[in-house]
Formats: sequence, structure tokens, C-alpha cells
Amino acid sequence: MFQPSGRRGIIEAGKSLLEAAQELGVALESVCGGKHVCGKCRVRIEEGFFAREGLDSSRRHLSPFSAEEEKFIGLQEREAGYRLACSAQLSGDVLVYLPEESRGQKQVIRKEVRDLPFPLNPGVKACFAQLPPPTLEEPLGDFERLGRELKKQYGLEGLAIDFPALKALPQALRDGNWEVTALIWMGREVLAVLPGGIENYYGLAVDIGTTTVAAYLCNLKNGRVAAADSMMNPQVTYGEDVMSRISYAMQNPGEGLRRMQEAIIGGLNELIRSVARAAGATPRDIFEMAVVGNTAMHHLFLGIHPLPLGLSPFPPALHRSLDIKARDLGMEIHPGANVHILPVEAGFVGADNVGVLIAETPYENQEITLLIDVGTNGELVLGNKERLLSCSCATGPALEGAHLQFGMRAAPGAIERVRIDPQTLATRFKVIGLDKWNDECAPGEVQARGICGSGIIEALAEMYKAGVLEKSGRFNSQVSSSKIRNQGKGREFILTRKEETAIGREITISIADVRAVQMAKGALHAGARVMMNRLGVKRVEKVVLAGAFGSMIDRERALILGMFPDCGLENVYSVGNAAGDGARMALLSREKRAEADRIARQVEYVELTTDTDFTEEFVKAMPFPQ
Amino acid sequence: MFQPSGRRGIIEAGKSLLEAAQELGVALESVCGGKHVCGKCRVRIEEGFFAREGLDSSRRHLSPFSAEEEKFIGLQEREAGYRLACSAQLSGDVLVYLPEESRGQKQVIRKEVRDLPFPLNPGVKACFAQLPPPTLEEPLGDFERLGRELKKQYGLEGLAIDFPALKALPQALRDGNWEVTALIWMGREVLAVLPGGIENYYGLAVDIGTTTVAAYLCNLKNGRVAAADSMMNPQVTYGEDVMSRISYAMQNPGEGLRRMQEAIIGGLNELIRSVARAAGATPRDIFEMAVVGNTAMHHLFLGIHPLPLGLSPFPPALHRSLDIKARDLGMEIHPGANVHILPVEAGFVGADNVGVLIAETPYENQEITLLIDVGTNGELVLGNKERLLSCSCATGPALEGAHLQFGMRAAPGAIERVRIDPQTLATRFKVIGLDKWNDECAPGEVQARGICGSGIIEALAEMYKAGVLEKSGRFNSQVSSSKIRNQGKGREFILTRKEETAIGREITISIADVRAVQMAKGALHAGARVMMNRLGVKRVEKVVLAGAFGSMIDRERALILGMFPDCGLENVYSVGNAAGDGARMALLSREKRAEADRIARQVEYVELTTDTDFTEEFVKAMPFPQ
Repeated sequence: MFQPSGRRGIIEAGKSLLEAAQELGVALESVCGGKHVCGKCRVRIEEGFFAREGLDSSRRHLSPFSAEEEKFIGLQEREAGYRLACSAQLSGDVLVYLPEESRGQKQVIRKEVRDLPFPLNPGVKACFAQLPPPTLEEPLGDFERLGRELKKQYGLEGLAIDFPALKALPQALRDGNWEVTALIWMGREVLAVLPGGIENYYGLAVDIGTTTVAAYLCNLKNGRVAAADSMMNPQVTYGEDVMSRISYAMQNPGEGLRRMQEAIIGGLNELIRSVARAAGATPRDIFEMAVVGNTAMHHLFLGIHPLPLGLSPFPPALHRSLDIKARDLGMEIHPGANVHILPVEAGFVGADNVGVLIAETPYENQEITLLIDVGTNGELVLGNKERLLSCSCATGPALEGAHLQFGMRAAPGAIERVRIDPQTLATRFKVIGLDKWNDECAPGEVQARGICGSGIIEALAEMYKAGVLEKSGRFNSQVSSSKIRNQGKGREFILTRKEETAIGREITISIADVRAVQMAKGALHAGARVMMNRLGVKRVEKVVLAGAFGSMIDRERALILGMFPDCGLENVYSVGNAAGDGARMALLSREKRAEADRIARQVEYVELTTDTDFTEEFVKAMPFPQ
Repeated sequence: MFQPSGRRGIIEAGKSLLEAAQELGVALESVCGGKHVCGKCRVRIEEGFFAREGLDSSRRHLSPFSAEEEKFIGLQEREAGYRLACSAQLSGDVLVYLPEESRGQKQVIRKEVRDLPFPLNPGVKACFAQLPPPTLEEPLGDFERLGRELKKQYGLEGLAIDFPALKALPQALRDGNWEVTALIWMGREVLAVLPGGIENYYGLAVDIGTTTVAAYLCNLKNGRVAAADSMMNPQVTYGEDVMSRISYAMQNPGEGLRRMQEAIIGGLNELIRSVARAAGATPRDIFEMAVVGNTAMHHLFLGIHPLPLGLSPFPPALHRSLDIKARDLGMEIHPGANVHILPVEAGFVGADNVGVLIAETPYENQEITLLIDVGTNGELVLGNKERLLSCSCATGPALEGAHLQFGMRAAPGAIERVRIDPQTLATRFKVIGLDKWNDECAPGEVQARGICGSGIIEALAEMYKAGVLEKSGRFNSQVSSSKIRNQGKGREFILTRKEETAIGREITISIADVRAVQMAKGALHAGARVMMNRLGVKRVEKVVLAGAFGSMIDRERALILGMFPDCGLENVYSVGNAAGDGARMALLSREKRAEADRIARQVEYVELTTDTDFTEEFVKAMPFPQ
């Protein structure tokens, strides 16, 4: 497993860590291409929960320290676990940490190197200009002198200049001996003027999720992702979900909002330093930011009180996209930079959904597409080039693995895969962080801690297929097995043996857990049905699962549970962090930005809580299909 | 004399202080109109250098304390010198201080109540709107909801919203129960949203002079000046004139500029508090500022390094007008307010000159007008509706009374009027602060301290008329008198007796002083001539003297000295602080603001230092005329 990306997989013994990284799509720097001569692919071997032997694992599970490695790694670093990825060959499990300096600048997150489906036309462009110095005959002001040249060379007219840029302008012109690079925003405003030419300049795309924040540093010159990183949203201290953060803001007037805004701004500033360092740049080299997030994250990021979002009729403070000076937000990038915040569709369909839309463009096709972004709230979009509807379903936290008896986040130790033999009810499972199924290793090695979202979906689908659960979701009273037992609140299914867990008892799935998942998937399914009725369609032709969770779900088992209307397994796609892709597109393309503004206004929001169809559809969607 | 306005004059004995104030154009509050019933016209009688008897003067030179006064003025205040201006009748000289609360809100500075020669159309307007609250059927965002109403009621489209206003918007809408007042800038941007309706809202016009800063608080609802005040530019600590401040910034890299900017921003913030208080408002009620100042003051106010202004070819950082957020400058007015800075013509012809231009509008007339704004630099504009030229003459500080042997600013004790008997050379003079000529009082009462700008002009004109000076400026060797004596560096004229001064010696005018004034007036005159040559005119038809000094100059004696080309005394006008008038006009009229932008680009700047005519004209202009 590679950290911090979290990529893991089974690699043939004898392959180098570099080869392993390449197979797993982990971006690891390697200038010489594995010839053992550049020393750029340094990694640190970490101890992990599956490598309880400690630092020894770096010796036992890897080839011995080689002569070429000695050239690049000093004694002290060697003791700290450093190796060259090109030289260290695998012979067992390892947890590898990529120091920032070794993280590749190309691909960290899926789809990033796919050709951009739009021409590169970023909001900020660098324009080099050579100016004739002022003379007594022609003592034109500095800014007008620059403007004249930018008009001549780039056809830019009527430019404004940001105030800090103006203050720095006279010095920059003289330091550069009248050769400067002007950073121009949307062809309208000079954000910065730097002496001489510049090598690279960057923009940052950010997806502020309720739980995870992802940042993509993009080189605005070529559109490529120069570095990417993610972190836990530091606001989780103040509440795990949207509603609890809104409550926190209400219960702590003034302070609550301020603290949560400071937390996200501070966290983003750290993330910015980290990606800048990884790309060999500084935060001041970042000249624009594009941000998506759900409406509550959007409000908290901007320091707008989220209270109205928590009370019917849930109006947001504004819908349209915004451009705010980075300095006004406390973002520590170039002080002249703007932060572009994508538009919001409605109180519960935010800028993150707009990001998904411009990344997946259902409005360009004739086929009826259902976009599902599952989280604490499921955000759905249904439609095609004729018409688009959106809605938000209160799925509750069950699909994220929260609030279940043994629910947990998708973290090491979480059961993420489940198989049940329909004959014997023998159960196999796999936990995150261990690349073997439980029956492939000693019970004590498994160390399961709970069930995450994708795990509960697989478990329920398998239980249903095996006949343990009825169509209605009840336990089938005809089936009796040592795996099923009664407990206080009803029946439960025993998923693990006690010895296989790290918590000292069996992990089970209760009838309450089944009901919670049924409620969640029922809401999702019913939301989709209500929109299908509105649109007058009987079938969806394509289903797109977006978001980190969306990409983890087993599509087949999601269909078995009836999480969304049936459309044929071959038409169900997982697209990963499409909201983040949308932010990146808005950063790199003015056309995409305009598209976002247009689409956000066109999507028709369907309020389910007042929809008369919804309850009926919800009742229909609760049972499992077939 | 009234403080702080500095107005003084001779008033008939028996008139009340209120009547005196009205005669002298001093804005003194008087709600009841002198009927002794409102108690609003409270003033404090101060001791002055001409009232050395101390507080007694308030009794001796005024009618006794009356019964009606007792109603409004307590014992403690009475001891501090408070009187009601309507009740206290004059019987001698007094120095009257107007507490802020008694200063009239109408007229402090000449011309202020003249009808505005333009329709009131301020940059910021308040728009009241009543919004339908959001419902589940129509949960439109707060800003879009406001925008829809502003479009419906005021035809405003495509409005942006300033970030702090957006943050405050949801609360303001709910506090006002969906009735709010939006402050809109230039029909484009929502600066602020306040719950309910508002009574008054203000703008501030500011003229930042090298020596004096004047501020006019204008009610944007009706265009009237609600309060006005002025202060010494706090930057004088860092240098008395423009060049010494530029030097200070150069000699103290980083720090120097910062300190000077902080000084002016801090000073303005004080001035703002003072005018707001006087108008019964708060600084947050000020929603826009319009600022003029010479190019160096402009740069220092903005925190732009003035170095290039001090080095040939003196290019400014920019020419065009600017709008900057008050918060980015540290101006403590409404945080959403913009500061509009008028455009600059050239390195030495600043936004103050543009202010004079839009106030005096020489470009509207056929007659050839010469505008003179005399300070350390004389800024000249010549032309008519066809064409306008401007130039800057390095007059040096002599015309401001500085750098002369006994030179001083126009402050109490400065000789400002001089008469010399051509026969006897007997000299009479008058000092500021004493409303009698020196021969009308005891020598010990005069207490002269030096000569100010208007004094030196009068003295030289009188010396020339009396034949003491030749046309060339030399002392006439034919004239011998006890008034003329040799000293080390040449001859000098004795203006005062020792007993008449506060400095223990005679005040004299040396040949060096004469030369300094000749240089200054020669430069001014030559600048005008060069522009006349360029324009191809032989005569100017109108001369306008602008600025505080311009209004103090005796026009006849300025003509005798040849400070500017002859044009007939009846065509010479003093217009006071025309630059401040221009700032006020830009604040209150978008048309005037556009006019300023247009005119600043149209005026053709004539660089005298490279002009081949200038030296020749300068030599010709040094002697006195006739």
C-alpha cells in the first residue's frame, strides 16, 4: 500500500517498488526511468497494522539494501527506512510512504491524464511584454505603458489592475528592466506583474467535501496536474455531517461559524503548501483557485452563516458563481489571485454537483442519464440534452457506513468485500489494508474493525441472494443457521468470527442495519423514480456513480439491492471524483466555467419533501427487487 | 476670528456672534434662528495671542452673560468660556471656537451652497426593496431574490455583490423581515444591504494637499455638505514638500513609504470620525470616498512608491482613475465602500488639478483661461474648449513663504498685508490674527513673527511701486533711506521695528528673498508664456487663482509683480479650494466623474524642462513688468 495516495494491490514478488507504483498508478518521481542513477525515487518504508513486525518488514519483505542505494541514501535516512523504489524488490507486504519530493507530478488520481475534452483556456494567463522605457518626451504612466503593450501584443483592451499589483508595478518594471510578465484574469484584470519571464504558473482546483478535501495543482501553461493531495476536512471536529455543522454554527453564534471557516481555510492553506512543494513551486505561484463543494461547505468556506440551509425552505445565500480575492478569504496564494466558486443549484444541490455535471455533460447527449453522487445526502441528476432535473435525497449516513451497529468509515480494518455461499452460508470477507481474503490468512491476521459503506452493500446483496433476507428485508424465518441468531432487537447475521476482529467480538449485521440501508437506498431509488415520472421516461439508459464512495461500490450488488432503477450492468459507470474533475475543468477552461453558470441555472430542482409522488415511490422502493 | 474655519473680519460693535458668523460665512448651527430658545449655537470664547488678558476677554469684549444663556450653559461650561452666539454681543476682538456640535451643516467653505452646476447622480445610491420571503415552491437564493426585486423596481440588471455584503445578506434580510435597503455602486455592485429603510447615507470628498487635507462629508440623498473639516497633512513630519517626502521614502526603504501611508490613512480616519460626528452619523454611514491630490500625495495615499516621480522622466504609476475597496486601504468607513481616486494628468500634474478642471470647466468656454494652482509647484492649465495644455513649474517654496529669511506659513503672526508710502517709504503692515494694522495699535501688541506668501508678494509689489526695487529686481542705488541697509549678502529692506515683533529683531526682506520670489514668479509666468506660444495666443482672457494661497493673493499686486501674463484685474478670479470642489463633484455626479476621466486624457502635458522656449521666457519673465 502506498501512502498518502492509499493505492494498494497485489504485486508479483521480485518486482521493484517503482514497478509496483507504476502498476498501481501511483505517481512516483523517476527521472532516470529505473536505471538506478537519478536517486529521485526515494521512498520510506513504514510500519503498518499488517506489518506488525515493525521496521524489520523493510528488510524481510524487500530485497536487501544495495550498493546503488548507498550512493543516494545516508546512514541516518537508511535507519529511518528510506529506500530507492527502483532498487528495492518486493518479497512480501509493505506500506510505502512517498515523501513529498518523490511524488510524481503526473497522475495521482484516476482520469487525470486523460486528454482534456475541451481546449485549454484558463481563467488566468501569463503575458510577457517588453516595454519601451519612459522618456521626457513620452513620460506615460507605468500602467498605461504596460496596457499599451498588452493591447499591441495580445489584443487586450480596457484592462483593470488589482490594487496590490498596481503597488508592485513600478518596482517590477524597473527590476525587470522593462521586461515583465503580467498575469491576466479573464482578459480583464491584471492580477500581478512579475519582472522578466516566468517558467510556470499554477492554478488550484479544490473539492471541499463534508469529509474529504481534495486539491489539484494544475500548471496553467499546459493544463497538466502538477501535484494533487487530499486531507480530512478539518471541520469534522465540529460535526461529522452537514446538519451537525449547521447546528454547531447555530449553537455557537458568531464563534461557531468563524471557527469552522478558519478550520477549512487553515486546512486548505496547508494543502496548498503541500502541493506547491510537491510541484517545486511556492503558494505565490498559484494565481487562481476554482472551488466546488456542497452548499453548506460552500457557505462555511465563504463565512456565510448556513442557518437558512438548515431550515425549510432551505434557500442558499446565492446561486451564481462568485469570484473573490484570495486575500479577502485568507487564502495564502498569490494575493492578487481570485477564487472562483462554482454556482449552486439549490439549497441541497451544490457546486459539487455542478462540477459533476460539467465533467460528465449529460446535457450533451440524447440518452437519459442518471448521475448519482452518494454521500450523507444523495444528489441525483436525471436527464439529457432536452431537460435536466436534480434532487437531493436524505439518504442518511448508512451508505457511508456510519450509524450502523458496526459501521465505520472506509479506513484500514473496514470490511469492504463480502461473499456468502448460498448453500452453506459460509462467509468470506476482505478488510481494507489487507490484500487477502479472511480465509487466506490466519484468523489473528485479519483484524477487522467494522463494516464500511461498500461492505454493507455487498453483505446485504449476498444475504439477499443467499435467501437469508426476504424481498421485504426481513430475515427469512425458513432459514436457520449458526450464522443467524436472535438478539434483543431482532435477528442478526454473524459476519466474522471473534478471532478475526480487532475489537474482541463478532461483527454482525442486525435487522436495524438492514432497515437503515433499505431506507437509504429506498430514498435514492424513489428520488430517481420521481424524476423519471416528471421527465416521463420509463427507463434510464446510463447510470453514473460519482464520488469516492461511488467508485468503491460493487455495481452488480448495488443493482441486486435496487439502489437505483435497473439499467443493465454494462450501462453503469463509476467516474471517481467527478466533482473535483469539474473544478479542474472550470479552472482550465473559461468555456467550462460559462457552461457551469448556464447549466446550474437550467437544471430544474425537484423538492422531494413536498412531492406527492415521493412517499408512494419510497414505499415501493424499500423492498429488494425481483 | 472663528476657529477652526479661520474666518475673520471687522464686525460692527453690538452685533451678536451669530450675526458675525453669518456675515463672515461661518457655518454656525442655529435652529431657532437667533431667538435664544434652541441653545444650539453654543460657542467657546478662546484666549488668543491678541487677547492676552486671558478668559477675561470673553467678558470685556462681549456683552455680559445673560439669563437665557444660563438655561443652556452650566456653571462649569460657563467658566470654560461657553456662550450662546445669539446672545453674546461684540464690543471688541474675540477668538471664537466652534465646538463640533455647533458647526453648521451647510456651509463651511466658500461656494459650498452654490447650486450644483450638474444633476445629482452620485456613484452610490440607496435602493429600498420589499421581498417576498422564500417558500418551498420558490426557494430562490437570497441574492437572486434581492436582484429580482431590484431589477423590477429600479431596472438594475447584472448586479454583482461585494463579498462582505454577501456575508451579511442573509441576516440583513431576516432582520429586516424581507425589507432592506441596498447600497448600489455605479448601478453595478451591491456594496451593503441594511435591514429596513435608512434615513441618510453619505459620501466623503477629500483633497489631500501636501500641507493641508480637507474633507467634505456629503449627504448622498440631497447632495448637501453635511460637515466639513480639515487638518494638517500628518506626513509633514516626514518632509515639508513633495521632494523631501520622496527622499524620505528613498532613504528609508520599505519603512518610509509605509510610515507615510499609515500617517495619511490614520489622519483621514480621524477626520472621518470628526465629520461623521459633526453630522450626527457614523463612519459606517459613509459609502463612498472621492479623492484628489497631487501625484505624490496620490501615490503615498495608495502606498505606491513615489521614487519614479522624483527621477526624470517622472512617470506616475498610472494615470487613470481608480476604484479601490476602502478596506484594502485601511479606510475606516463602510467596509464595502469604494474609494474613487480621480485620474492624474502627468507626473507633476495630479488628480488635484483634474479636480480644479472639472470645477472650473475651462473646456466649456471659448475664452482662453489660465488656471493657476500655486503651491510648492505651480500647476498651470491654459486653454479653452478647443484645446487644453497643462504644465508644472518648479516655483520653489518662496511663494508659500518658505525658505525666505523671515519666511513662514500663513499662520498667526505672519505679515500678510504691506503698504509702503512711495514718498516716505513709511511701512504699514498687518499680521494674521490681528485685525488691525500695525500703526493702529501699540507696538507691543503687534507680535509679528515673519512673512507669509501673500505678505512677500505685497511687500515686493509695494517696494517696486515705491522705487525701492528696480525693474530688474535690484535695489535702486539712487534710493537711500533708513529703511534700507547693507548686510553681509547685499541690501535689505526693513519691514518692521524690533518692538513690533515677537522674535526680538527687525523683520527684513533681503535681496536673496527678492531673487527667490523673482525665480518663482518668473517660472510661473514663463510656464504660462510657453503654453501661450504653443497655443498660438497672445493674451489670456481670464485668470483663475485656485488653492488656499490663490485666494489669499492680492490680485492687483500679483499683476504688478508679473506673476502671470497681464489680463486686466477684472478678469482675475480667486476660486478657493477648487480641487476639493472637484472631488465633491466627482462624488456627487457620475457625469462629472466621466468628465474627469475624459479631460485628464485630453489635457496635453507640456514638459517645461525640455522645452527650448522655456529658458528664454524665464529670462524675460524675471524682471518686473512695465
